[in-house]
Amino acid sequence: MASFDVAGIVQALHGARSDWRESQKRSREPGGREFPSREAVGGIVESLKGALFPMRLGPPDLRQESEDFYVAHTLDAALHALLAQARLELRYSARREGNGELDAQIDAKAQALVHSFASALPAIRRLLDSDVVAAYRGDPAARSVDEVLLCYPGVLAMIHHRVAHQLYRLELPLLARIVAELAHSQTGIDLHPGAAIGAGFFIDHGTGVVIGETAVIGERVRVYQAVTLGAKRFPTDDDGHLHKGLPRHPIVEDDVVIYAGATILGRVTLGKGAVIGGNVWLTHDVPAGGNVTQAVSREASATRAAP
Amino acid sequence: MASFDVAGIVQALHGARSDWRESQKRSREPGGREFPSREAVGGIVESLKGALFPMRLGPPDLRQESEDFYVAHTLDAALHALLAQARLELRYSARREGNGELDAQIDAKAQALVHSFASALPAIRRLLDSDVVAAYRGDPAARSVDEVLLCYPGVLAMIHHRVAHQLYRLELPLLARIVAELAHSQTGIDLHPGAAIGAGFFIDHGTGVVIGETAVIGERVRVYQAVTLGAKRFPTDDDGHLHKGLPRHPIVEDDVVIYAGATILGRVTLGKGAVIGGNVWLTHDVPAGGNVTQAVSREASATRAAP
Amino acid sequence: MASFDVAGIVQALHGARSDWRESQKRSREPGGREFPSREAVGGIVESLKGALFPMRLGPPDLRQESEDFYVAHTLDAALHALLAQARLELRYSARREGNGELDAQIDAKAQALVHSFASALPAIRRLLDSDVVAAYRGDPAARSVDEVLLCYPGVLAMIHHRVAHQLYRLELPLLARIVAELAHSQTGIDLHPGAAIGAGFFIDHGTGVVIGETAVIGERVRVYQAVTLGAKRFPTDDDGHLHKGLPRHPIVEDDVVIYAGATILGRVTLGKGAVIGGNVWLTHDVPAGGNVTQAVSREASATRAAP
Amino acid sequence: MASFDVAGIVQALHGARSDWRESQKRSREPGGREFPSREAVGGIVESLKGALFPMRLGPPDLRQESEDFYVAHTLDAALHALLAQARLELRYSARREGNGELDAQIDAKAQALVHSFASALPAIRRLLDSDVVAAYRGDPAARSVDEVLLCYPGVLAMIHHRVAHQLYRLELPLLARIVAELAHSQTGIDLHPGAAIGAGFFIDHGTGVVIGETAVIGERVRVYQAVTLGAKRFPTDDDGHLHKGLPRHPIVEDDVVIYAGATILGRVTLGKGAVIGGNVWLTHDVPAGGNVTQAVSREASATRAAP
Amino acid sequence: MASFDVAGIVQALHGARSDWRESQKRSREPGGREFPSREAVGGIVESLKGALFPMRLGPPDLRQESEDFYVAHTLDAALHALLAQARLELRYSARREGNGELDAQIDAKAQALVHSFASALPAIRRLLDSDVVAAYRGDPAARSVDEVLLCYPGVLAMIHHRVAHQLYRLELPLLARIVAELAHSQTGIDLHPGAAIGAGFFIDHGTGVVIGETAVIGERVRVYQAVTLGAKRFPTDDDGHLHKGLPRHPIVEDDVVIYAGATILGRVTLGKGAVIGGNVWLTHDVPAGGNVTQAVSREASATRAAP
Amino acid sequence: MASFDVAGIVQALHGARSDWRESQKRSREPGGREFPSREAVGGIVESLKGALFPMRLGPPDLRQESEDFYVAHTLDAALHALLAQARLELRYSARREGNGELDAQIDAKAQALVHSFASALPAIRRLLDSDVVAAYRGDPAARSVDEVLLCYPGVLAMIHHRVAHQLYRLELPLLARIVAELAHSQTGIDLHPGAAIGAGFFIDHGTGVVIGETAVIGERVRVYQAVTLGAKRFPTDDDGHLHKGLPRHPIVEDDVVIYAGATILGRVTLGKGAVIGGNVWLTHDVPAGGNVTQAVSREASATRAAP
Repeated sequence: MASFDVAGIVQALHGARSDWRESQKRSREPGGREFPSREAVGGIVESLKGALFPMRLGPPDLRQESEDFYVAHTLDAALHALLAQARLELRYSARREGNGELDAQIDAKAQALVHSFASALPAIRRLLDSDVVAAYRGDPAARSVDEVLLCYPGVLAMIHHRVAHQLYRLELPLLARIVAELAHSQTGIDLHPGAAIGAGFFIDHGTGVVIGETAVIGERVRVYQAVTLGAKRFPTDDDGHLHKGLPRHPIVEDDVVIYAGATILGRVTLGKGAVIGGNVWLTHDVPAGGNVTQAVSREASATRAAP
Repeated sequence: MASFDVAGIVQALHGARSDWRESQKRSREPGGREFPSREAVGGIVESLKGALFPMRLGPPDLRQESEDFYVAHTLDAALHALLAQARLELRYSARREGNGELDAQIDAKAQALVHSFASALPAIRRLLDSDVVAAYRGDPAARSVDEVLLCYPGVLAMIHHRVAHQLYRLELPLLARIVAELAHSQTGIDLHPGAAIGAGFFIDHGTGVVIGETAVIGERVRVYQAVTLGAKRFPTDDDGHLHKGLPRHPIVEDDVVIYAGATILGRVTLGKGAVIGGNVWLTHDVPAGGNVTQAVSREASATRAAP
Repeated sequence: MASFDVAGIVQALHGARSDWRESQKRSREPGGREFPSREAVGGIVESLKGALFPMRLGPPDLRQESEDFYVAHTLDAALHALLAQARLELRYSARREGNGELDAQIDAKAQALVHSFASALPAIRRLLDSDVVAAYRGDPAARSVDEVLLCYPGVLAMIHHRVAHQLYRLELPLLARIVAELAHSQTGIDLHPGAAIGAGFFIDHGTGVVIGETAVIGERVRVYQAVTLGAKRFPTDDDGHLHKGLPRHPIVEDDVVIYAGATILGRVTLGKGAVIGGNVWLTHDVPAGGNVTQAVSREASATRAAP
Repeated sequence: MASFDVAGIVQALHGARSDWRESQKRSREPGGREFPSREAVGGIVESLKGALFPMRLGPPDLRQESEDFYVAHTLDAALHALLAQARLELRYSARREGNGELDAQIDAKAQALVHSFASALPAIRRLLDSDVVAAYRGDPAARSVDEVLLCYPGVLAMIHHRVAHQLYRLELPLLARIVAELAHSQTGIDLHPGAAIGAGFFIDHGTGVVIGETAVIGERVRVYQAVTLGAKRFPTDDDGHLHKGLPRHPIVEDDVVIYAGATILGRVTLGKGAVIGGNVWLTHDVPAGGNVTQAVSREASATRAAP
Repeated sequence: MASFDVAGIVQALHGARSDWRESQKRSREPGGREFPSREAVGGIVESLKGALFPMRLGPPDLRQESEDFYVAHTLDAALHALLAQARLELRYSARREGNGELDAQIDAKAQALVHSFASALPAIRRLLDSDVVAAYRGDPAARSVDEVLLCYPGVLAMIHHRVAHQLYRLELPLLARIVAELAHSQTGIDLHPGAAIGAGFFIDHGTGVVIGETAVIGERVRVYQAVTLGAKRFPTDDDGHLHKGLPRHPIVEDDVVIYAGATILGRVTLGKGAVIGGNVWLTHDVPAGGNVTQAVSREASATRAAP
Repeated sequence: MASFDVAGIVQALHGARSDWRESQKRSREPGGREFPSREAVGGIVESLKGALFPMRLGPPDLRQESEDFYVAHTLDAALHALLAQARLELRYSARREGNGELDAQIDAKAQALVHSFASALPAIRRLLDSDVVAAYRGDPAARSVDEVLLCYPGVLAMIHHRVAHQLYRLELPLLARIVAELAHSQTGIDLHPGAAIGAGFFIDHGTGVVIGETAVIGERVRVYQAVTLGAKRFPTDDDGHLHKGLPRHPIVEDDVVIYAGATILGRVTLGKGAVIGGNVWLTHDVPAGGNVTQAVSREASATRAAP
């Protein structure tokens, strides 16, 4: 008969949890988990997609003359759901920081943040329209703006990013992170919510793209798969702790193109209109209009194989 | 009390949509969305997988003596569902091109296309069998062809690709694209439906592989993760518009192996049996049997760190 | 009227299946599919996640004082479900190898394997705690260990890996593979279940990471996106068959850091504390404390574009 | 091995279907089923319930200040879904009657009918409010109007009935029937959509109540479980065909009470304020204020049982 | 904080279960529940409905030219699922009776029973067609045979009954019972699977109808709501145990009509063409053509109420 | 184009709601619905069923040696879910009665009530065991206690009733009502939660049974379908308001049997061992051992029909 000493394993797992909690100096958590929910945030993002693009990403049976009804109801529900998640994040932060913030203060703050978030949505829609146009113009295989909106992983990543970036700016970094990771998982594109990205941004193919927290990107920039805009090794203080929050990722000015696999590290600046070739490894500035390619010596040598 | 001026935001979003529609010269769309559905296409592909490999990808309780019943019913339903999606794509194209095609003409055309698609399925199954065998032979970790079929992302990507390529050849590029992106999202492998790929193709690991629209690949070719078969910068005409549809991706002949991270760009030819080393960056032809590795100077230098 | 000659296609597909089965020397499979199920294994892994981290990955309404009840019930159900899948794998292997093992023997063996697996869970939890701490310490953008556990794809990949590795050691390679591929699909991180990985392992960003079957990794190692720990070309015997199971992937000692895009191939050793730069291509040993960067000549040349 | 001669049974079932179709003089039905869908109608009714009672039967997270958004969107979607079902019913009728009505005519008619239906909704809500109040007043066990609305099967039956009756009046008898049967199945209360029922109607307990097509019921009427307002044996014409559509069920005036199990048959009139006792069998008129009880002789005789 | 002494209650419930098992002389049940599953049987019945009436109760997108594919696949799956449930019932019976039947014997028997069941399906379809026609002819409110098939609870009950009766005849009484109770719950019509019912049976309204195990009903019989064909008090033997299995319910010959609420008890015979009035209580035979109504004295007396 | 003046109807519905709220003297409800949820209560009851009968009504893959784990986890979750619903009911009551109870008081009270409820569960299980045995003994068609537990609607109704009655006694009448109505809808058996019912109660067939709030039923009582234990007309005070809460339903002593369709009204007593015949109408006491049948005159007269 199958018998696995479940009781013994349960006890050992209990011990492991206790040790962890002690090591983390955690008090007990009465009353259940209090942490934003990935599922809830996922639902909110789906609703926001529908509210932003009702005839394309809303329900299939929507008709144009009823768009506003749908948008109003969906937005209202999504914003209140977001309010609940924002409260969870703010309370979680308050508990961790022990800053003694009262629930009422937190609720008022959550309310104000979601209000700001809501006001930003029309501008987000206009930015996303510019991204869609950029993708359509930038890919010779694209047949219509609708195809781009519905099929391109880079556009999906940008819808998530523009929502996540707004949450990040409003100091809801955890919600922002969840929104970003939902897109990362679907697309392989890893955009930190902190990255500031201008209008008309186009990511082609996208798998493996990584853009860091303090990156600043201008308008009409185009990047291909596996491009990294990263940090160099992190500065640490005398105790070996990481300095957090310092600008450490590249600045990319308007109209720059970065081909597949290029890696640009540190707080360097790529000047307006610069073109960075594929697989280039770059840790210094590039002037406006500059054109960076790999050094000749990197060309591979081809030899006929022995018979 | 929470109150977010939903009415105001709805109005602003309405304005953003109006501006977009005007910029795109869109007429109103009475009667709801008319565009192929990602969910519907996803369902069709799942059905086709079951019809192609009933005892492995069909329902878990299927028995071998009933395979044909299952295949017949599933195929019949999937083909009619595909017919509906094909109509949506053709009508969408006709509307955009304003070519005055009548619904009856479109329906007849959709019918003919799906008929052709259906006829190609047995050949697709045989090609996929060759891909499964190739994966089994090419990976020392593979224990059985069943494991390969059920677990390998490269095989999943090829099932989608061989279906998508057939749709692409039948001039249903949008359906083809959706089929391809469904696999891209699950595997990180981005195969353009236009790429022509011979029998016995094996993609190992796969994340980050990108193969472009006009690539042509022979038989028994093997590629590893993060390989790109891409285009060089796109040619533009005098007005700066991209030339679309020109052959711009590599030709890869039989028995070529391309190791991880290699990037091959432009309409170059890799001759029969050539081997391309990892991370190689290549923009010219390689003769049959050629062996391309990175130049020596790219070898990294190792030094002992100071104490 | 739509009519697709379904009967004809069914017959042709039947022929393709017959040819395949003949080519594979398959006897008929009476009584339905006998193969582990991806859905079932996925459900088991979700249950194990809940049992390992009840207040974070268990049901949202769980409270701390009831954790053990939940863990006991969930674990019990998951282990018995795993037992059923283990039986399927062992029977499948026995059938393929024709080793005449009896069902009763197989059942006893499955029982023993799952018993061992269960006993290892507390140690797995402690290892995963070390991974969470490593991620928190290693990423300047991380705000809390909870965020790391809930949001970081690298942590998700390691939960799957530590479960999969245990299954692999117990000689259930197919179940192990399915567990690994479930994470691969969600994260783009491809960790072979055979890889032996020490405590405190951190994968940042992660998309495109590939770690091979015989890799051995020490404690407190850190890797970034697109790092490959792979094999060189596979040795074949005189008949051209691959040698399977030989050690062929790198050994990485404690405290090594490997930056994004680095490729390390073959049974080389990276000594304790070594640092491997981004995009480095490496096929030889590095001494302890060694610091490997790309050769200077690989620096790209920047020139101002002609007006 | 299990083998059930499925092919033989399929053929026999095919024969049975052919015989049926021949007996029914059915032509072939190309293009699939064209008949209103029970599932679709069920979804429409659920939406209408939410639109009629948003804070009680709408989504649990609705808040009062957003009611109108929810109502507008839900109603819009429900009415268009109803339009689709109305078209199906009208086309089905036209096909059966062979009246040569064109699709365009049918669509215009469906449009007009649903328009009328929509206009009647506010009046339906007011009637239902009167029913809720009547139930609250009529049942000593009722604690609040909310309990009545949410828990009483009689109220559920009346919500369905008032919707179904409106559909019936608009000559969509099939949709009306489906709406009624959905409530019948949940409550055991069988109200024919044709029955005309005044405000403030209360059905207590309800199981087994049957009210026929041509019944006419005044205001503030109360009935208990297992009451039948039925027809006497149906009149037939000389050929033995049933006369359809004749008034054949009772007229019940205002303020009548009918206790459990009473059966009232035929086009009789129960005058204002009449009280009909339990289990009474009645086939003639009762004057206003009349009080009908069972004849004395029906009292049961009680005898002490032999030891 | 909420704390409910769950451990104590669990122990007390454990005690209650132990006492029960002891009182029932139950041995332990290793290996989990072995009993037919209501959910599984429900799924089988839904499949059989689709196989019997593919264009009406099968999938909404089925087309007539593909019916046989659908029927074959669905039937095949349903019969094998039924085989599994039949095995569970037979094993359960064997365990309870301790008759030492071997699993192999049971499996062979299950196989034979399901084979017989399958062969009966075409005849069941023809009987159900006769029921549909009977309902259409018998109800002045019926507009089409399709409406009858899709909306009438009496027809739903008969579909379940004719399946259940076949299972009952094949000595699978538990499966038969589950099939019957599924309909009972939806319709309020309680037909014991043992009842033998001829062609063209029509139950109008239906709620409260009860027909007992040994009832025998001829052709073209019609019954209304709340009709009971029951047993008189059960005969017991000297020890007070019930005699099981004796004929104890009425025989109803062809063309009988029984109006609402009539109760007929015991092994009486209603002769061909008899008509039984509403609410009649009957415990003796009625000759062919007989017409039974309530005695005059039962007419209720109506008096004007005092002011 | 379809256009239904949704805005106008929304406004009219808004008006209807305003009128209703004014008529009910409702203040606004900020913050959403606060009322127990039928879905939530349904989920709780399903969990309790599993906790009470784990091997029969719990998950299908449960094994006997793990019962307690399952019971503990399920019970814990169900009790906390019940606590949440109890709070909603108590707050709703406090709001309606305006009794100024504070949330903290309400929470403490809810806690205490659910604690009491939990303690009663083992006794409820023992009572239900007695009901199962009674059904098995009382029905000649029953083959095993398992069949009875899994298939008999009367047993389902009693599981719900014994839970509901405990909630009723703890003054959670709304939750009790919801539990009861869930069974009413599935079985057609309407047991008011207030009814006090002794051990070994058996309801056969059950459709149409109604038992009122203040009924008191002894041990080993048996009732058949359509039996009513009801109140006579309700007493009203001088203002015409109903007296609520008075004993107004029958007392049924031990070992009574009541056959189908009998109606017993008012606070009468049926003495120990009495037998009440089918369809009897009874409004006075019956002595112990009494045997009540219908008066002779009610026998129907049978006449041969004219040829």
